[in-house]
Amino acid sequence: MSAQLAAVDALPSLEQIRDAAARIAPHAYVTPILRSPALDALSGAQLHFKSENLQRGGAFKFRGACNAVWSLSDDEAARGVVTHSSGNHGNALALAAATRGIAAHVVVPEGAVRAKVEAIERAGAILHRCAPTQAAREAMSHDVQRATGAIMVHPYADTRVMAGQGTLALELLRQSGGLDALITPVGGGGLASGVAIAAHGVDSSITLFGAEPQGADDAAQSLAHGARVASVVPDTLCDGLRALIGERNLDALRTYRVQVITVADADTVAAMQLLWSELKQVVEVSSATVFAAILKRRDLFAGKRVGVVLTGGNVDLHDLPW
Amino acid sequence: MSAQLAAVDALPSLEQIRDAAARIAPHAYVTPILRSPALDALSGAQLHFKSENLQRGGAFKFRGACNAVWSLSDDEAARGVVTHSSGNHGNALALAAATRGIAAHVVVPEGAVRAKVEAIERAGAILHRCAPTQAAREAMSHDVQRATGAIMVHPYADTRVMAGQGTLALELLRQSGGLDALITPVGGGGLASGVAIAAHGVDSSITLFGAEPQGADDAAQSLAHGARVASVVPDTLCDGLRALIGERNLDALRTYRVQVITVADADTVAAMQLLWSELKQVVEVSSATVFAAILKRRDLFAGKRVGVVLTGGNVDLHDLPW
Repeated sequence: MSAQLAAVDALPSLEQIRDAAARIAPHAYVTPILRSPALDALSGAQLHFKSENLQRGGAFKFRGACNAVWSLSDDEAARGVVTHSSGNHGNALALAAATRGIAAHVVVPEGAVRAKVEAIERAGAILHRCAPTQAAREAMSHDVQRATGAIMVHPYADTRVMAGQGTLALELLRQSGGLDALITPVGGGGLASGVAIAAHGVDSSITLFGAEPQGADDAAQSLAHGARVASVVPDTLCDGLRALIGERNLDALRTYRVQVITVADADTVAAMQLLWSELKQVVEVSSATVFAAILKRRDLFAGKRVGVVLTGGNVDLHDLPW
Repeated sequence: MSAQLAAVDALPSLEQIRDAAARIAPHAYVTPILRSPALDALSGAQLHFKSENLQRGGAFKFRGACNAVWSLSDDEAARGVVTHSSGNHGNALALAAATRGIAAHVVVPEGAVRAKVEAIERAGAILHRCAPTQAAREAMSHDVQRATGAIMVHPYADTRVMAGQGTLALELLRQSGGLDALITPVGGGGLASGVAIAAHGVDSSITLFGAEPQGADDAAQSLAHGARVASVVPDTLCDGLRALIGERNLDALRTYRVQVITVADADTVAAMQLLWSELKQVVEVSSATVFAAILKRRDLFAGKRVGVVLTGGNVDLHDLPW
């Protein structure tokens, strides 16, 4: 994988993000901006919620996966795509592959959430089960690549994926008519880096923020220490934010001065309930980190027009965190 | 109350509904239409969900209350408004009164859901508590009217309220570009009658449907028996649909040939979960009756463009019905 990743591992340019927007336009939804007087009052800010829970597949991940799939030449596409993910990226890649009529192989570790695995299967992916370790996931991915020639689409370290996620910021800025600040959750950093490049490219005066669970605060630690900290063992309810930040993704956070705010899971769950009861949106716990961060650091957001990315809405209704 | 009600108890005309739309435009939201390929596939129909859970106050009720409040002369308005409702209408009237800076008195029976009562209070209403009987509610309302001169705004038998609810159909038809059928829940019938008049007025070829819980099927029984059946004792989880249908509201269902489909609560709860997991919308159980009805009677909706009114999203997240 390393040779192939090296070839596609650079940060995308604003130009590549604009190309991605045009490429995914026939397939992705333009998700609405939602407003709430009650949440504005609570935060003291003017919040523009980008509802990616309403994106195809229920998460922003479709943007990056779709851009990757439609960036392939016909010859490459014919070989199919592969990734290892038991979450929203696996589902998004399966849906994106279906829009082009090509095969999607998804490597799924034993013990993954059954509902998510079933969704990936329903979306038409070919599942490959492996042991629940990073090594086993990568080994199985290599096996699939060798056997099928499928193109690897990494969840966040892939240039095409980062560019696709960045399209969300172009839309949000256009729809909101301009912002003072913008905040996304930070996991592997594909979203945060793509959004930072796009937002900074359109308007370099926008202040950029990330929200990270305290139990998976490797990005905050990495920024504080000036080098990537890979020793964090994630311990958080936010299943979408357990990945460690990628090298290039961290570069982007540094370059565009993304300030990472860490939040306790208990505060994230409280924020999630506010989003459900006031915005009437089903959003997953990872998505609520951003609103928890805004409530924690009202001083940073008061009086500002803030873009708030609600990343996804794929939850198990029978296993809510309250 | 009867003398005053008689004066405003007529069904609204299409003209009055159009006037209401202009009157509430500065205050009410134009709620989006939501689509879902998954729910279309499940139903075999093309479903256009009108997301009134995103309306001010979290329910369509704001439309009717707002129209009533802004229909008053300045002299009338100065006396304030009153209603008896422990649910969405009470909250909506309080919010609507606040837009005009006038007093809202809401008579609340003992034993009402605390969260809803607190919301009504937060919206700025003056609460008047009474025993949990219809007689006590009406007596207390009379007392408030006598003491304050406040104008009664009935939840569904008021012409101005029916006209306000009907504005939803004008919007839905414009946003969707035309429909073959339209379905709303049926409780007291304010929504169903307003929508029927508006939809029929714009396009008389639209087939109109109502959805009613089997445990509160007084409208279905009334239509079947050719006269209002007032003997039904409501027994349903759908707290928004326990009111018996009003006389004039029933007239409208008859005139516009609204076909009422009854649904079991278990099917409504299953439909509610599908709306949450696929549309990512927090909607209350009463709102899910319409989708349960579509799934029950696929034969009536297959292949059709159907407007589906999601009436509200005010739920207790700690007391979900599954």
